[in-house]
Amino acid sequence: MPKVVDHDRRREQLADAALSLIAKHGMRGVTTRAVAEEAGWSTGVLTHYSKSLSELLLAALRRAAELQGRIFREMRAEKDLDAVQRLALIVDSVLPLDDRRMAMNRIFSVYYAEVGVNEATRDEVIDYLDQWRRLVERIVRSGQEDGSIASTRSPAQLAVDIVALADGLSIHASIDPRILERLQAEPAPGVRIVRTVLGSDVGVTS
Amino acid sequence: MPKVVDHDRRREQLADAALSLIAKHGMRGVTTRAVAEEAGWSTGVLTHYSKSLSELLLAALRRAAELQGRIFREMRAEKDLDAVQRLALIVDSVLPLDDRRMAMNRIFSVYYAEVGVNEATRDEVIDYLDQWRRLVERIVRSGQEDGSIASTRSPAQLAVDIVALADGLSIHASIDPRILERLQAEPAPGVRIVRTVLGSDVGVTS
Repeated sequence: MPKVVDHDRRREQLADAALSLIAKHGMRGVTTRAVAEEAGWSTGVLTHYSKSLSELLLAALRRAAELQGRIFREMRAEKDLDAVQRLALIVDSVLPLDDRRMAMNRIFSVYYAEVGVNEATRDEVIDYLDQWRRLVERIVRSGQEDGSIASTRSPAQLAVDIVALADGLSIHASIDPRILERLQAEPAPGVRIVRTVLGSDVGVTS
Repeated sequence: MPKVVDHDRRREQLADAALSLIAKHGMRGVTTRAVAEEAGWSTGVLTHYSKSLSELLLAALRRAAELQGRIFREMRAEKDLDAVQRLALIVDSVLPLDDRRMAMNRIFSVYYAEVGVNEATRDEVIDYLDQWRRLVERIVRSGQEDGSIASTRSPAQLAVDIVALADGLSIHASIDPRILERLQAEPAPGVRIVRTVLGSDVGVTS
């Protein structure tokens, strides 16, 4: 009887192996041979699942976006939070304040750099940022509807700015230890970042 | 009589050739051979100036930071501007609203991605961002001194946030055409970005 192979699981493992290599060595460290080794398989098995290195890299990017997307959905489903608290949870989930989030930031920064030259990657990165932005926009809108956020600015613009500030700070903190230390020293960085953009559109207590 | 060679000028030309290749093809497009071709020289001449590819890439990063640093100093020396206007000029100088600034954003995003795996690059990128942040901090401080910016928050924190929002938006606009269109549609994006972070710390007219 032939051995039953879970192909989806294998694809996932290959993507995880590629992500782990990117986190450790950057884009230059990713070769089909290195990914096969990291996953514990032969290059032959790997090429059965990914025809080229760029196909493999795209699978890794999708996996990273999927993992972060799952976290975003969990934040969205959290009960008993007001809009600012929910936005703060989402921002906190991307700040590089532990190894997992630091690796995630490294991975996305590698893909951000690829965007300029790789069309397939570009669409995936745009979708990922768009998913994040739409979630933030939806929560801002609900805050404006329940009156916890003033309706002076458009939810779309506020979402663009909250995501840009959170991502910009995350990128800078993953580059510069002093910016990371600043974030680590803050009692509630997510709340502070959300409030910086919302400014006087949100009350003093929340 | 031996030909007089301007070595500094040659190094500059090599760095410019590397920057141009990065803007066009990303990090993967940069090889010593490609840089030599782009600069119009033999690989032999190139290796006389740069012993390795990583040395060449570091020279290119320094050149990009130097070019942007020159622009920052010009903004600082501009006459008859209040603090918010001066901050807005600095923010505008990094937004990818023309080919030069778009290429600059691509180049820095490539180096941001390298930081996780390349110690030499890390220090250069940290210095560049720090130079930008210190300039912004100095202007915020002068605004707080002349009363055009309220002294409720520290100039250092405001500088971290202004630079992060400006850089985050620039990165996102260089990835996603819809974010770029948003910036292009704004009558004064730099002023809006600075005012988003300063919030009620700055008056309505400026």
